[in-house]
Amino acid sequence: MSKMKNLKFTIAYDGTDFCGYQRQGQGERTVQGELEKALFKLTGEVPKLIASGRTDAGTHAKGQVINCVTNSRIPTERWPVAFNTCLPPDVVVWKAEEVSPEFHARYWAKSKTYQYLIDRRRWPDIFLRRFSYNFPQQLQVEAIQQAASFLLGTHDFKGFMAAGSSVINTIRSIYRVEVEEMENQLLFIFEGNGFLYKMVRNIVGTLLVIGEGRMQPTVIREILVNGKREEAGPTAPPRGLTLMRVTY
Amino acid sequence: MSKMKNLKFTIAYDGTDFCGYQRQGQGERTVQGELEKALFKLTGEVPKLIASGRTDAGTHAKGQVINCVTNSRIPTERWPVAFNTCLPPDVVVWKAEEVSPEFHARYWAKSKTYQYLIDRRRWPDIFLRRFSYNFPQQLQVEAIQQAASFLLGTHDFKGFMAAGSSVINTIRSIYRVEVEEMENQLLFIFEGNGFLYKMVRNIVGTLLVIGEGRMQPTVIREILVNGKREEAGPTAPPRGLTLMRVTY
Repeated sequence: MSKMKNLKFTIAYDGTDFCGYQRQGQGERTVQGELEKALFKLTGEVPKLIASGRTDAGTHAKGQVINCVTNSRIPTERWPVAFNTCLPPDVVVWKAEEVSPEFHARYWAKSKTYQYLIDRRRWPDIFLRRFSYNFPQQLQVEAIQQAASFLLGTHDFKGFMAAGSSVINTIRSIYRVEVEEMENQLLFIFEGNGFLYKMVRNIVGTLLVIGEGRMQPTVIREILVNGKREEAGPTAPPRGLTLMRVTY
Repeated sequence: MSKMKNLKFTIAYDGTDFCGYQRQGQGERTVQGELEKALFKLTGEVPKLIASGRTDAGTHAKGQVINCVTNSRIPTERWPVAFNTCLPPDVVVWKAEEVSPEFHARYWAKSKTYQYLIDRRRWPDIFLRRFSYNFPQQLQVEAIQQAASFLLGTHDFKGFMAAGSSVINTIRSIYRVEVEEMENQLLFIFEGNGFLYKMVRNIVGTLLVIGEGRMQPTVIREILVNGKREEAGPTAPPRGLTLMRVTY
């Protein structure tokens, strides 16, 4: 009799050609769909896949975490090779670990780290165009940094949640915010205990409006207090966003 | 009567989804084909496009140079905006200059610089997979650097030309060779007065075999002397190769 194993996988994907992480209707290409097809080829099973969370269409991952229970006899250390052989080139499994039967990639997640990359060149960098948002306008980086610092801590992020989202508890904690200026680029890093639907992209969109000088840095603090989505800036496009890490 | 202008454009492209630079038969997607379609939309003309040289299917450019003669009244400085509006996202025109009527992007080229990027991670970096060759095997970088230094100067590169190529003069000069070791990457830079068909990819393929310790660094010198293609290593894949710059 084969032994049931709960396997935790750390995966990366280029979200450009996917309709998001989660399986949808027929004919939509999703990361979950590709993983399930590969698992079926490898094991003959159709295991229930649990991810730390969804990512939107066009959003990427370098450190998404998923888990599933399998009867397969493939040794744990052989899983990345086996999995990658059956996956398309835009999904890569780079780590496999056996975890306790109770481990749950979503419920057990303690923090998530996202990056959002701005390409500040006049014309898009051809190597980065799938993974960044080309924004050549002048930016006051100090104003952005000041505004970003208001996000740290525990707040009601309702004003940065996508309109029409039905989540009830909109309180989240942000542990780390970095705004790193590099040659031709601006990199945002956000680590927190959870993020509402489109929250990072709404925050980045607002920070860019602040960087252009069209809003004051304190508008971030005001939206955290009054929860008004209509006072925030536009939603930044998904291609700049990457899920970097999930901690447990 | 409108004035004829000879325009020089500096362009970048992600070669992944192209069958090379040069227009081919029907139904093949090429960079030249996309540029011609855009020019026709903008000017109603079908100008003869001259490039500094072709790039292979799957090979990229950050600084390819093309020129064409046009009657269009679009001011030179407006050309990048106009051109990019009509181009797909994997081709970007980032510079336009008016040049003398005699300028010819191929005949006037003095040197070209190519880079070849190796991704040394165990699993492909998802951001770099289109622009690098994932090669996780151990490499002796010093042996590669020693071997690469033999390429400098003027040599008969016949032994590094693709089999079946019909070029008669196979003498070329290489002015600069750099082998840069970075975290998880190895970057090759080659500058020369011209490169034979698949020459850079054949050189890189041979340098990687040397790096693995399966050939001696001096094999490069021997191939330059005896011209034997069969003594060189395999052709490295096109995706790691990018045309960086053409000087005039």
